Amino acid sequence: VRLEVFFTPEELTGGDIRDHVAVVIDVLRATSVIAQAMSSGARTIYPVATTEEAVRLGQNLDRSELILCGERGGLRIEGFHLGNSPLEFTPEAVGNRVLVMSTTNGTPALMAALPARRTLVAAFLNLGAVAQSVANEDAITIVCAGREGHFALEDAVCAGMFVERVMNLGAGSYELNDCALAALALANRFAGELDAMLRVSAAGRQLIGIGQEQDLVYCGGVDQLTVVPRLEDRRITV
Amino acid sequence: VRLEVFFTPEELTGGDIRDHVAVVIDVLRATSVIAQAMSSGARTIYPVATTEEAVRLGQNLDRSELILCGERGGLRIEGFHLGNSPLEFTPEAVGNRVLVMSTTNGTPALMAALPARRTLVAAFLNLGAVAQSVANEDAITIVCAGREGHFALEDAVCAGMFVERVMNLGAGSYELNDCALAALALANRFAGELDAMLRVSAAGRQLIGIGQEQDLVYCGGVDQLTVVPRLEDRRITV
Repeated sequence: VRLEVFFTPEELTGGDIRDHVAVVIDVLRATSVIAQAMSSGARTIYPVATTEEAVRLGQNLDRSELILCGERGGLRIEGFHLGNSPLEFTPEAVGNRVLVMSTTNGTPALMAALPARRTLVAAFLNLGAVAQSVANEDAITIVCAGREGHFALEDAVCAGMFVERVMNLGAGSYELNDCALAALALANRFAGELDAMLRVSAAGRQLIGIGQEQDLVYCGGVDQLTVVPRLEDRRITV
Repeated sequence: VRLEVFFTPEELTGGDIRDHVAVVIDVLRATSVIAQAMSSGARTIYPVATTEEAVRLGQNLDRSELILCGERGGLRIEGFHLGNSPLEFTPEAVGNRVLVMSTTNGTPALMAALPARRTLVAAFLNLGAVAQSVANEDAITIVCAGREGHFALEDAVCAGMFVERVMNLGAGSYELNDCALAALALANRFAGELDAMLRVSAAGRQLIGIGQEQDLVYCGGVDQLTVVPRLEDRRITV
């Protein structure tokens, strides 16, 4: 079984993943928000890269069920219904709604993973559910969102815990790339202190700086959700 | 003290490091070879990216003292004097000579680090000597060569051991980026078994595949050399 991790979407560029299952991770906060929104009953999520794209796409959708959400610099985009805190995505706010979501790092990672045969969305929140659903696959590619082309500690740790889960569930022998070997070691080091790890990470420090510390605690909750969001034709469903 | 690691030269792109000291790491094998060659008395090394560039530059240098060296796919380039195994770079072979070196991953990393105020070259072989020479700096940027834009485990482990050495030597408080935090954890995990780590890394497996296993053992030797190679105006001296 091939089990490969990429620390940034850029690292994956050019790789042929058509026969792979891809898993996208952006712990702070896009994939945590996606897991939370789908778990709260959102019907579908359209991830887009820019505010303009979100507005444009929103104009083609039924306004009565549309929710525009997303962040710039961590804060809600002006005129949008919701920001990028998973705590906002309650059943009351998003149940049965269609979401258009603009995120800085999450969208490029999702688009990089789109060519895969199947593309799933994972975070600490739904780690076990997604691991379970790929456990019998032959080739698994895990794409970390990172931060604007840079390595992000929290995504690498989550990727490592994901790799560990898959290996514990499966029976075969595994072929890991260098990132997967490193991610496993990072998971081993930080799994017991996710909250402290999130606080020291660059993304975590930025969230604390803008007063969204409560999101850190929430996004560090392992296996709180059982949803397995899937990206297909540029939209996410369950 | 700012202490930053970048896992690939691409990750550094756009960063302003003019006031920083940069340290370039390509364990398998460019910076190990550079440390070995300078330690064996080479007068200077010109790192270049392509075979053609090596030949062109060689034509402008005194032929009696010139050594062309480098690899493609790990093997010596046809018509060149030496390949890319540190074991070839003996005092007899390179003492007082001028080397032109073509390496796949080492050169892009060195060029990415060139804008720094001071650019040094490190590997496991000369880790302590280079750490000592930067211990009093305020901003240290460590650039891993990686493998064709991808993360390389051995470079990250070496970077982590380097960060650890600098922190142990210095007195101040340190500001680490996410890569540096991860590299420290990787050093902690693998420092006690460098040989096994090198054998499982992608670069190490490639070397074993082409029959150059002895280089793995050699390049994993920590603090075997005391040389501090410096890159300036596109050439390396001590």
